[in-house]
Amino acid sequence: MIQVAIVGGTGYTGVELLRLLAAHPGVILRAITSRSEAGTPVADMFPNLRGHVDLCFSDPDEADLSACDAVFFATPNGVAMQHAPALVEAGVRVIDLAADFRLRDPAEWERWYGLPHACPGLLAEAVYGLPEVNREAIRQARVIANPGCYPTAVQLAFLPLLEKGLVRPQGLVADCKSGVSGAGRKASVTTLLGEASENFQAYAVAGHRHLPEIRQGLRVATDQPVELTFVPHLTPMIRGIHATCYATLEAGAEDLQALYEQRYADEPFVDVLPAGSHPQTRSVRGANTCRIAVHRPQEGDTVVVLSVIDNLVKGAAGQAVQNLNILFGFDEHAGIDGIALLP
Amino acid sequence: MIQVAIVGGTGYTGVELLRLLAAHPGVILRAITSRSEAGTPVADMFPNLRGHVDLCFSDPDEADLSACDAVFFATPNGVAMQHAPALVEAGVRVIDLAADFRLRDPAEWERWYGLPHACPGLLAEAVYGLPEVNREAIRQARVIANPGCYPTAVQLAFLPLLEKGLVRPQGLVADCKSGVSGAGRKASVTTLLGEASENFQAYAVAGHRHLPEIRQGLRVATDQPVELTFVPHLTPMIRGIHATCYATLEAGAEDLQALYEQRYADEPFVDVLPAGSHPQTRSVRGANTCRIAVHRPQEGDTVVVLSVIDNLVKGAAGQAVQNLNILFGFDEHAGIDGIALLP
Amino acid sequence: MIQVAIVGGTGYTGVELLRLLAAHPGVILRAITSRSEAGTPVADMFPNLRGHVDLCFSDPDEADLSACDAVFFATPNGVAMQHAPALVEAGVRVIDLAADFRLRDPAEWERWYGLPHACPGLLAEAVYGLPEVNREAIRQARVIANPGCYPTAVQLAFLPLLEKGLVRPQGLVADCKSGVSGAGRKASVTTLLGEASENFQAYAVAGHRHLPEIRQGLRVATDQPVELTFVPHLTPMIRGIHATCYATLEAGAEDLQALYEQRYADEPFVDVLPAGSHPQTRSVRGANTCRIAVHRPQEGDTVVVLSVIDNLVKGAAGQAVQNLNILFGFDEHAGIDGIALLP
Amino acid sequence: MIQVAIVGGTGYTGVELLRLLAAHPGVILRAITSRSEAGTPVADMFPNLRGHVDLCFSDPDEADLSACDAVFFATPNGVAMQHAPALVEAGVRVIDLAADFRLRDPAEWERWYGLPHACPGLLAEAVYGLPEVNREAIRQARVIANPGCYPTAVQLAFLPLLEKGLVRPQGLVADCKSGVSGAGRKASVTTLLGEASENFQAYAVAGHRHLPEIRQGLRVATDQPVELTFVPHLTPMIRGIHATCYATLEAGAEDLQALYEQRYADEPFVDVLPAGSHPQTRSVRGANTCRIAVHRPQEGDTVVVLSVIDNLVKGAAGQAVQNLNILFGFDEHAGIDGIALLP
Repeated sequence: MIQVAIVGGTGYTGVELLRLLAAHPGVILRAITSRSEAGTPVADMFPNLRGHVDLCFSDPDEADLSACDAVFFATPNGVAMQHAPALVEAGVRVIDLAADFRLRDPAEWERWYGLPHACPGLLAEAVYGLPEVNREAIRQARVIANPGCYPTAVQLAFLPLLEKGLVRPQGLVADCKSGVSGAGRKASVTTLLGEASENFQAYAVAGHRHLPEIRQGLRVATDQPVELTFVPHLTPMIRGIHATCYATLEAGAEDLQALYEQRYADEPFVDVLPAGSHPQTRSVRGANTCRIAVHRPQEGDTVVVLSVIDNLVKGAAGQAVQNLNILFGFDEHAGIDGIALLP
Repeated sequence: MIQVAIVGGTGYTGVELLRLLAAHPGVILRAITSRSEAGTPVADMFPNLRGHVDLCFSDPDEADLSACDAVFFATPNGVAMQHAPALVEAGVRVIDLAADFRLRDPAEWERWYGLPHACPGLLAEAVYGLPEVNREAIRQARVIANPGCYPTAVQLAFLPLLEKGLVRPQGLVADCKSGVSGAGRKASVTTLLGEASENFQAYAVAGHRHLPEIRQGLRVATDQPVELTFVPHLTPMIRGIHATCYATLEAGAEDLQALYEQRYADEPFVDVLPAGSHPQTRSVRGANTCRIAVHRPQEGDTVVVLSVIDNLVKGAAGQAVQNLNILFGFDEHAGIDGIALLP
Repeated sequence: MIQVAIVGGTGYTGVELLRLLAAHPGVILRAITSRSEAGTPVADMFPNLRGHVDLCFSDPDEADLSACDAVFFATPNGVAMQHAPALVEAGVRVIDLAADFRLRDPAEWERWYGLPHACPGLLAEAVYGLPEVNREAIRQARVIANPGCYPTAVQLAFLPLLEKGLVRPQGLVADCKSGVSGAGRKASVTTLLGEASENFQAYAVAGHRHLPEIRQGLRVATDQPVELTFVPHLTPMIRGIHATCYATLEAGAEDLQALYEQRYADEPFVDVLPAGSHPQTRSVRGANTCRIAVHRPQEGDTVVVLSVIDNLVKGAAGQAVQNLNILFGFDEHAGIDGIALLP
Repeated sequence: MIQVAIVGGTGYTGVELLRLLAAHPGVILRAITSRSEAGTPVADMFPNLRGHVDLCFSDPDEADLSACDAVFFATPNGVAMQHAPALVEAGVRVIDLAADFRLRDPAEWERWYGLPHACPGLLAEAVYGLPEVNREAIRQARVIANPGCYPTAVQLAFLPLLEKGLVRPQGLVADCKSGVSGAGRKASVTTLLGEASENFQAYAVAGHRHLPEIRQGLRVATDQPVELTFVPHLTPMIRGIHATCYATLEAGAEDLQALYEQRYADEPFVDVLPAGSHPQTRSVRGANTCRIAVHRPQEGDTVVVLSVIDNLVKGAAGQAVQNLNILFGFDEHAGIDGIALLP
């Protein structure tokens, strides 16, 4: 049994980490911190946890995080990088669910997030926690940058094509649709039910922070510069991301279905659907699975890859637990083998 | 390990039973039948089960149900009563999720369901599977009538008051709201998203089949005739029942909060919330829990009891597994200890 | 043509007033004020108004409200009573969509709203703007208290029974369900789509501010003290209120259907449905209509009245325009004769 | 005043036509036919019409359609082409909301719709009813093919670019999202609230019937062969289409914002939003408007055009009324100038 803590647990990734970790066979949940809610039972804020989690939120200054084996940061961007160096120094593994360690280049981080990076040295050694790409590196990591939700869905969709050089790395399009829980659990007009229900819209077409993260991952896969248009959309549902990804084939003859099946044959949490399928976001609701289907409409030059995840699970808390499992040698399924809730 | 089968598995209670039983530590799922879908992998119909359930639907005539320890009927009303006698004869325990064994009086059954009862003898010995009332009888039962969804929520709300004789058994009101999954997974105009979303309405005010079932349970509790008005409503969501129950206090001085807490102190799946609470249906989404709050507004004569369940879990498949656990001596939590999915 | 202004137009009642008034044949919309948004085109905040309303929000201190014929207050409680006396003095008719003039008794107002009333004199002469009760008084009013959304639906449901003395004025129950737009357009966690969608819950069971307003109206109708239990619920949809109202018949023989049809025969915005009907909230979405059905289940002593409105139209902005029409002698349908949007 | 009839009025385009025509100042609604519902008041099926439309459905064989000035077909594909020749012969203008007259080439029609075309001669003279392209031809038409919902949104998005030859006609992508009312009002499992709510998925990626229709329109605009990938998605809402359209600039220097504003400057129902905007489907809910925004992310070679319509209005019934207005010389806004319902 290892001891873990969650820093900043009042958002949706926090409650989802609690749901998963409370049922994890190898984990003792030692603390969950929130400055504003210190002393409040977490089950008062998240009534689904009544009877399952007895912890109260604790003050981050008083929680003895350095006695943990691992600490998850479910905080706003810019917090984990303040605390990670001391924890790493104390031998604690850090899994950051925010963006602090996702971009390799501190200058690019500063450009997109508007802050200088607080620990470029640690950034340099942090491992990007996409197990389908970096499983071996994750085992040794001291700091894991848990991928963003859109980047998880989009990279898993494009990787097989780019790794084999089958498509042009220019003109890539990732048209993504997300449930509103991706915007977090904070008071806001935009994501009120009265505003976001019965409505569909794009946002941040000019440039979203997940764009450089996706581009970085695709560049590594293809070893060439990548030109990607990324358009996120807000969808009137709570959970789920659907990425519809478009690329132009360099040469048409490949068996794309076999390519995807082989690429992910040994991946426990990527499910390549039969040819002709259309994955549904609800088929992964609450589950750590990414389901993918690959199409080549009318046998033309355009490949269409459909990829769905639960943004709070494979796109956040579930992938963080998957990374924890890899890091500590647990069965990779531990705590994240639940079946999606349908309907 | 016991062997179980599900008869009629193409509806929402079917897929929910599969989700729960696939993770149950003491159960081998031997067969799931559907005449129309025989040969189809269940995971083709319910994509959440891909990678978790490998069964195909089998023809009910070919499935060797009598070799099972227990058989669940997730069929339309009127089917289980045709098949139960032979199965019971063969030593198989029957758990019927439909209404065939719910009403004690065959004449009343015929009046509400429009068919003569096929096995009044077996009906006479069947046990009404509400564990909070009949746990001991369930242990010995050969046939269990799994309660309806509304009756579960309403009886658990009213029982403490009626058992103690604290309220008048006349003038009871159960104003109930259900998600549309209660109407099942069959093609229908009424429950299309285009019809049922962004809409709220009552239905069956003149008389709903769950009325006699609830009345019967309350009469047993109070040992007096009961006069109940039951109004169900269709709510634009998938899962969840909220029962708002009204009764008139005979004498006002009782500590109602303590009454409810004591009544359900040993019940693993009934959670009495702190005084002043308002239970949320999402707090039990996917979970087998009933959460209850009791109010006495303005210290008047009217008691208001709020009760929420997931209609597909504590209101159907989860309660059926709870009954199975009791029947076969498993830990009562086995397979149904999942935490509700929130958000 | 009359000139009107709206004070405080950034909420849902504001945009709904604009939608209706922009198409009203007898009204010139002179100003809409918002201190925080002064200078912003209203169509920037409410994109449905692009091409239909060219106004910008103006600073309330600079808007020349006293030059208007009528001013609507779509402000938080407590604002209209500060400004109404000067406007009335200047000959402007005031229609308050908030609660400032709804309760006759200033002490009761203070108890429920937590503020002393700023102009008890004007309160004494204000007319409660429920046209189905006070049409004649509305014609002469200088200040109109536009009724609350729940009070509109509940009073229209109960009035025919209470006016005729057919039911006991004790033990009344109003179980009400509202879409979340009733909570307004302000940043809030509770009404985020991630919190309020796929969820159903009661709130304010201990006491809601609309309780004294409803009680006051029913007391006037029956001329006796009234005992009412009012339980509001939050429903996962944007618009619509469904009131399910319960009362106990004093004598059973009355033809309730005829009673309701006669009571509302001349009312342009109350539609009594045929016997056995279940009104749908979507049947009045965007329309100023209240649709009502009356039931007596199993010919028992309990009457069940089902009443639906659009909380933003007949429950707020539409009724305000109806009051304006009565006040200024327009056709009562002017500007509010739109057909509900279905689906 | 002209006399019009609707053939096949039990679906969503039928009720929407009724809503619009009932308030049209120049139209007398003479009949609405439905074989299965003959004799039923339309307001029984569509309760929003109570008090506004008194018609009953009539038997199509008995309705005297040839006495009308215009007949709308809101029937399944393949019906209008059976009846149009006789009506045209009788001097009646036909507006078909189905697909019978949309594809110029009868062979292509047969390939996509699986039926030989019943009247290729009339097909040859039919006018494609997209007023922004064919307004003059519409004035003279005897048969108008009302465009499909996706084709309306996509063509209005792409036309300015293609007409000016600013983008490559290859590699076009139209990633489209539709509310479920697009699937019609017929009993179906796929569009049950229990299936389609809280879910997002693509469908018909291999080929959708609107693909040849869009391609045909774009080819006319650019006078070159066009290569388009069209991926429709089902969105958990009732109304609305959002088209996200991607194209590759041939030359980058053009002022795209000005291009769009000029192209649609005189169009009453196309609204080009300010630079940087993201149109919302709810901003056109119930309205006949198409709102468009054009983006060039990071000043790259990819243009992104966002286009929203209400699939039942500008994508069906509203555009049909717009065509009627043009045909009969009414003000083009007549009957379709309603403001979108928001929230």
